[in-house]
Amino acid sequence: MSESFDAVDIIRTKRDRGELSTDEIAWVVDAYTREVVADEQMASLAMAILLNGMTRREISDWTAAMIASGERMDFSSLSRPTADKHSTGGVGDKITLPLAPLVAACGVAVPQLSGRGLGHTGGTLDKLEAVPGWRAALSNEEILAQLEDVGAVICAAGSGLAPADKRLYSLRDVTGTVEAIPLIASSIMSKKIAEGTGALVLDVKVGSGAFMKTESDARELAQTMVALGTDAGVRTVALLTDMSTPLGRTAGNGLEVRESVEVLAGGGPADVVELTLALAREMVAGAGVTDVDPADALADGRAMDVWRRMISAQGGDPDAPLPTAKETHVVTADADGVLTRLDAFSVGVAAWRLGAGRARKEDPVQAAAGVELHAKPGERVRGGQPLVTLHTDTPQRFARAVEALEGAWDIGSRGTADGRRDIVIDRIA
Amino acid sequence: MSESFDAVDIIRTKRDRGELSTDEIAWVVDAYTREVVADEQMASLAMAILLNGMTRREISDWTAAMIASGERMDFSSLSRPTADKHSTGGVGDKITLPLAPLVAACGVAVPQLSGRGLGHTGGTLDKLEAVPGWRAALSNEEILAQLEDVGAVICAAGSGLAPADKRLYSLRDVTGTVEAIPLIASSIMSKKIAEGTGALVLDVKVGSGAFMKTESDARELAQTMVALGTDAGVRTVALLTDMSTPLGRTAGNGLEVRESVEVLAGGGPADVVELTLALAREMVAGAGVTDVDPADALADGRAMDVWRRMISAQGGDPDAPLPTAKETHVVTADADGVLTRLDAFSVGVAAWRLGAGRARKEDPVQAAAGVELHAKPGERVRGGQPLVTLHTDTPQRFARAVEALEGAWDIGSRGTADGRRDIVIDRIA
Repeated sequence: MSESFDAVDIIRTKRDRGELSTDEIAWVVDAYTREVVADEQMASLAMAILLNGMTRREISDWTAAMIASGERMDFSSLSRPTADKHSTGGVGDKITLPLAPLVAACGVAVPQLSGRGLGHTGGTLDKLEAVPGWRAALSNEEILAQLEDVGAVICAAGSGLAPADKRLYSLRDVTGTVEAIPLIASSIMSKKIAEGTGALVLDVKVGSGAFMKTESDARELAQTMVALGTDAGVRTVALLTDMSTPLGRTAGNGLEVRESVEVLAGGGPADVVELTLALAREMVAGAGVTDVDPADALADGRAMDVWRRMISAQGGDPDAPLPTAKETHVVTADADGVLTRLDAFSVGVAAWRLGAGRARKEDPVQAAAGVELHAKPGERVRGGQPLVTLHTDTPQRFARAVEALEGAWDIGSRGTADGRRDIVIDRIA
Repeated sequence: MSESFDAVDIIRTKRDRGELSTDEIAWVVDAYTREVVADEQMASLAMAILLNGMTRREISDWTAAMIASGERMDFSSLSRPTADKHSTGGVGDKITLPLAPLVAACGVAVPQLSGRGLGHTGGTLDKLEAVPGWRAALSNEEILAQLEDVGAVICAAGSGLAPADKRLYSLRDVTGTVEAIPLIASSIMSKKIAEGTGALVLDVKVGSGAFMKTESDARELAQTMVALGTDAGVRTVALLTDMSTPLGRTAGNGLEVRESVEVLAGGGPADVVELTLALAREMVAGAGVTDVDPADALADGRAMDVWRRMISAQGGDPDAPLPTAKETHVVTADADGVLTRLDAFSVGVAAWRLGAGRARKEDPVQAAAGVELHAKPGERVRGGQPLVTLHTDTPQRFARAVEALEGAWDIGSRGTADGRRDIVIDRIA
């Protein structure tokens, strides 16, 4: 970096709705990583970006600067093409668990570098850690070897990819600037591009349980990320998917592993199967594989085989019983009728309060805590019969979880539900 | 402070154009002073305030919270009423120097707690420090005694008044948030209200040499400050005054003291005399004194008497020669005609670069450096004759000062200048 800029000038430009140059963006991201630009300066800039936005070119430059802050991975030595998926996070979103082995079973390598949960949405690593013995940390060499041997890896993203993002994300978390679409998009895409995947499918969720509450915000984020991926030479597609109600019938780490294994065994909730197959088809097609239907690889047990090998390769025992909660509490339906609405956010908060999630990143999570749903929108319920079961090792948490569920559902008298909608709302390419 | 809030919630509220409650504002300002709210959080909030604004009630609460962060002074034991003036800063703005003794000569005590200069505008304390022996630091007891005895004090504001402002101002300076009108207004008014003056006149400058470049911004700031003063029980008036061209014929510390003494002696530039009298009349009226005309106190030498006693009381020698610069450089007019424009900002930057101002608050200033103007807008000039004289102890500074003056004036062929305007643009009460 030969040129030098003044952080205050850069902040003022964005504050006054100006456009930052490529060199200014490269400098400010690099200088922030080197701690030359202070946290308070980046916080002020992040708020100006949130309120005044960025052009596609600025976001692309910002993403490139974040990638340049760290290492890049290289999967070109693998004998098969690669495809990855990123979800913006939702309640009961265990899709990565069946999806990665399913796509690997179709001949595509899946390097799924994942994170932990914070707040009401769970993290993929937290879920897999419910499997006895399984470990999240792998070296780059172990990742490559497992991709070649098993075809799928779900592990922790190392600190070497886009370290600027790590510092910036922590800052945004405490400064009310998490919601800036240019910063969300560049945060996600810098890691995925640095990871070196050939194809990428984005699951951008919309609804109460999602980060994006409105379809227009979700669409803007999806379009921004697809453009960033495309600009960087990654074949990128986004699906806009519904997160107004939880995915599947469980929210919580061990409970979601159990449900994922059911899907891999050919069963499981219809919505989880539907979204898993939709994403798998995009990933397989993105990787250029045209002669395999993921539905077959799910039906004939090949996906389950890869799952078992993937878990074993990381020290997990696929046959070990999953942990169960010490205590359960059943909430019953208050009327006969059809469940017309079951709010994703409320269920997510209840699971979080039961111990499935964490409030701060250093908090532990309970492997067995969570919420089990006995009905999904569109299904009939009977007054007095169980509607949800709460699971936790610490029963003093039940009261606040029940509180979170207050007003979380509607039971209608009509024979059909009007709350039901398609999982996949739109496809953006 | 019994209640506690979450800084991120407060930032989000302002980010989303919401209104902060009285308790939220009291908490966030207090918590920032106690370093519970971090710099990066306040920076993000400051940018949100700059871009989304604050209601009058919010600004009033913010000001009250800043006052509550420190001590308050009390002038109620004095035998005369008090009045103070605050200028938002301009080029050649030495008005405080003749004004304070003039108002004191009218029977009103003037507690003028002042600051140092930063950037292209000078600071009152820097100017007075050109007087041999004069010292800026006084204890609260010395201030009170001098007010009773002499009637006027110009000294450094102690760190006890609104300490939250001190921390916040330093933060705004490095985060591109200096220009937030609610924060400018509360910064100024928190100190003036805590200082305990009975009446306050605000000189809000507008034009290239001022902080506020447009009349609408200056008007908004003036109205905001008058409302804050009024809400706090201080009789407050604002004058909107012109800062498109420098005040008087000098910009620079010792040069401006010399010019101020000329005014006190009954001479001096017409614009300096005009503005000094306009502000003096507002201060005297605000203090409830109706039987004295400041013009008389200036004409008959009473103001000069107070000046001499005020300087002596703080260790200065009113008869000592002022320092003169080691080197001067004359810039001549390039044509015959009428000076139609002489840009305040350019002259301010030139004086700054000659050594009259500082780039960082720890920098020293030169007592004798500055710019002397041989013509003011509306006056005739002749090609080849001196237009400005530059003064400095460090002649290597001349080149960059001359550069700052490039394009700083227009000489017209017409017999009258169209660049001349009234000093006082409007009065806001």
